Amino acid sequence: MDIEKVNSMDFGEFVDVFGNVIERCPLIAAAVWSQRPFLDLEDLEKHFFAFIDALPQSGQEGILRCHPDLAGRELQQGKLTAESQREQSGAGLTSLGADERLRLAELNAQYRARFGFPFILAARLSDRAAVPSELARRLLCPPAQELRTALGEVKKIGGLRLADLLCADPAKL
Amino acid sequence: MDIEKVNSMDFGEFVDVFGNVIERCPLIAAAVWSQRPFLDLEDLEKHFFAFIDALPQSGQEGILRCHPDLAGRELQQGKLTAESQREQSGAGLTSLGADERLRLAELNAQYRARFGFPFILAARLSDRAAVPSELARRLLCPPAQELRTALGEVKKIGGLRLADLLCADPAKL
Repeated sequence: MDIEKVNSMDFGEFVDVFGNVIERCPLIAAAVWSQRPFLDLEDLEKHFFAFIDALPQSGQEGILRCHPDLAGRELQQGKLTAESQREQSGAGLTSLGADERLRLAELNAQYRARFGFPFILAARLSDRAAVPSELARRLLCPPAQELRTALGEVKKIGGLRLADLLCADPAKL
Repeated sequence: MDIEKVNSMDFGEFVDVFGNVIERCPLIAAAVWSQRPFLDLEDLEKHFFAFIDALPQSGQEGILRCHPDLAGRELQQGKLTAESQREQSGAGLTSLGADERLRLAELNAQYRARFGFPFILAARLSDRAAVPSELARRLLCPPAQELRTALGEVKKIGGLRLADLLCADPAKL
């Protein structure tokens, strides 16, 4: 899909295609459509990120709270979005042993209780071995820093999803 | 469900229950959770509406664009949310004749082309006879006024959905 195709979309098509660039937040794609035409993938991505950055803190935390746990309840219940399912599966998180799953569930619960949002990590840039150690490390970070880190992960995930949709090489972003 | 129960919810439960108070915008419920504890239904509603009012115009338009057409594509394809399905069905919009459906589809398309968002009406406060005439009337309104009207309808829909969830009588709101 090239950028001319993107710029020709009405808002219904645009939200259908880009509605889950930010997990379970079609509102953001629907808002970004107002900024068309876009120059290129980088410009499109910039508008997604600018919308996130302009939200009040409660809205930014709202975005985080729309994300599933890694290897958590939504995965067990088959309720992940297609994108999350692919990403968690690619990182090996759908085939954890019972011990690993329990350990992650405990860490996820501690993280949620401490920060008021779920632990978010761009799973495609990680793997099942790295997830629990990264979670344990970030569990100790100050809340304001962790909010920034988590929003950075949301942007990494969104950037990769956008690159997929425009069939671009993410290494070139 | 009483307000103590609402105030005791973690964000996962809260988003599960209130995620579609604003159609397809769980981000908003997830943001509102930051404002707990809530005094009562009215206070909870106030926080939903305050979040909408504080968004930039592109974000407010984004909310509108997450709504389905009345008697439109999502209804035909069985892709409405449970709440929208009930509301459109209650207003008789699921049993239109072919002529009525075609007339509404034409008006919806004109409206979308003029304003850049779909025609939104609290269907539970209307009926199949009133919808096309109200649509035709609002099609002639100035865009800035129509944005305000549409957001007012979003709030009516959200208020009724909240009242349902808390089993309150909407007439007393």
